[in-house]
Amino acid sequence: MTVKGRLAALDWGTSSLRAALLDANGAVLDERSPGRGILSVAPGEFPTVFDAACGDWLRAGTPHAIVSGMAGSRQGWMEAPYCTCPAGFAEIAAHLAWIERGRIGIVPGLSCEAGGVPDVMRGEETQILGALDLLGTDDAVFVLPGTHSKWARVTRGRIETFSTFMTGEFYALLRKQSILARTLPEADGDLDEQVFRRGVDQSLRGAGLLHNAFGVRTLSLFDRLEADALSSYLSGLVIGEELRAQELPAKMPVIVIGAPALTRRYEIALQALGASAQSLGSEATWRGLWRIAQAAPW
Amino acid sequence: MTVKGRLAALDWGTSSLRAALLDANGAVLDERSPGRGILSVAPGEFPTVFDAACGDWLRAGTPHAIVSGMAGSRQGWMEAPYCTCPAGFAEIAAHLAWIERGRIGIVPGLSCEAGGVPDVMRGEETQILGALDLLGTDDAVFVLPGTHSKWARVTRGRIETFSTFMTGEFYALLRKQSILARTLPEADGDLDEQVFRRGVDQSLRGAGLLHNAFGVRTLSLFDRLEADALSSYLSGLVIGEELRAQELPAKMPVIVIGAPALTRRYEIALQALGASAQSLGSEATWRGLWRIAQAAPW
Repeated sequence: MTVKGRLAALDWGTSSLRAALLDANGAVLDERSPGRGILSVAPGEFPTVFDAACGDWLRAGTPHAIVSGMAGSRQGWMEAPYCTCPAGFAEIAAHLAWIERGRIGIVPGLSCEAGGVPDVMRGEETQILGALDLLGTDDAVFVLPGTHSKWARVTRGRIETFSTFMTGEFYALLRKQSILARTLPEADGDLDEQVFRRGVDQSLRGAGLLHNAFGVRTLSLFDRLEADALSSYLSGLVIGEELRAQELPAKMPVIVIGAPALTRRYEIALQALGASAQSLGSEATWRGLWRIAQAAPW
Repeated sequence: MTVKGRLAALDWGTSSLRAALLDANGAVLDERSPGRGILSVAPGEFPTVFDAACGDWLRAGTPHAIVSGMAGSRQGWMEAPYCTCPAGFAEIAAHLAWIERGRIGIVPGLSCEAGGVPDVMRGEETQILGALDLLGTDDAVFVLPGTHSKWARVTRGRIETFSTFMTGEFYALLRKQSILARTLPEADGDLDEQVFRRGVDQSLRGAGLLHNAFGVRTLSLFDRLEADALSSYLSGLVIGEELRAQELPAKMPVIVIGAPALTRRYEIALQALGASAQSLGSEATWRGLWRIAQAAPW
């Protein structure tokens, strides 16, 4: 009683677990967010959490389940060794790690190397490939903003190279743990887009974040920025610093995948660089998982 | 019963207080480190702490006391408004803030401005001017490494401009509060100079600290660096990032003022840039305070 072509798709990250039931064309029939990121799951408890999330779909005849994200890390359900770049649907599908051969597969993360230093991603590869498919392109620059932002270059449908920026984490450290925490108000207000842009421009001048971050303190000390605007300025500084490190191909739009509040900031910052941006939400994940499943040797 | 020309010199910072009794030529007769940085002093308690540190010297006939450092900040004993750059002995001496006119003076900090963003220092101006005097030069580049490193350019005996880098604070945040804390061993071992240099070189390549810091994690993940060497690599990354932002005049040595363990790191890093370094310890503070006192309108 398998329901031909149906797929249970799971995006299982550090702090969240989302599941979708997809039909034979990849359309979403049902979607759930049970929470339960891998940090909240004890070793040995993964099968139970998986079953609670989507066991009913499998019992009702969905033949396959596919999982992306940190569930495939050493601290997750089962380690799915990194697949080396360049990698597209075919390479990733060929390297699924099997929880149950032909039934439950885990998508491997990707690794690449630049100047003797490795880099890694887990989960973002699925979003990037899904976005390619949704946009009908196979040549693009991607950014997936977050705690650890990923920039990736895709050529002929394969992720050629990528690199990680600890932008969100630096922001949180500076905002909450550094000397700047004494200057900034307790809670972040709404984004002040003009002040944010001023922070971006300051970083693009190139003095570096070690120096520019101190400006949050002095601009406040000399009453040049109101307290409520300081976190927008700091956000502009860190995102501007991330952008400064990119070599963007001329005339190629940057595809930003993420939540609207964050993608909006990247759109403004990319404008400051004279680059255009195109934003996409989490729909890319389901499409990526569905396409990987199509290519997998079940 | 004044002892002609004697001076009580105090270096009163955020986390430490040091006092020296100097003779008419600026030689140190006695030196004390009572601890008691301004963070440990309640408002109103400053006169008592001052008296415990050097009141006996004044009672025994030393006519003047001079104080540099954060004691002159808004959170200190009395705010000594910033003196604007360029500033040398004359400008600073003319702007002493008086706890007691003609008897106890506080050295003002300096401010400057670049691209619409102000910068400030308090205490370092005294060390820089003291070092100039000790070295018999009036044209130099200085770095004072620390939680907030200061780089300064001195021309014709006056500090023309300077800028702050939150290098020590970023190191501590990344070392102790970031995701890297899970990768790094609990305690720092001895500096591994070769690995430190590798971190410096990596930063000089220019991808930025937001990216390079993530390399600490991946180099460990792929067993490319031993756990004990990771903190040396991270230290090289942050100091290298600080150096990358400098425009150093050709053939001018950089004068590094600080504790030997830290100045050694800057010597190695400056070598990587092809620049030469000359190191100096805290003797510069006493010389600076003595020379400012000579120029002051007691």
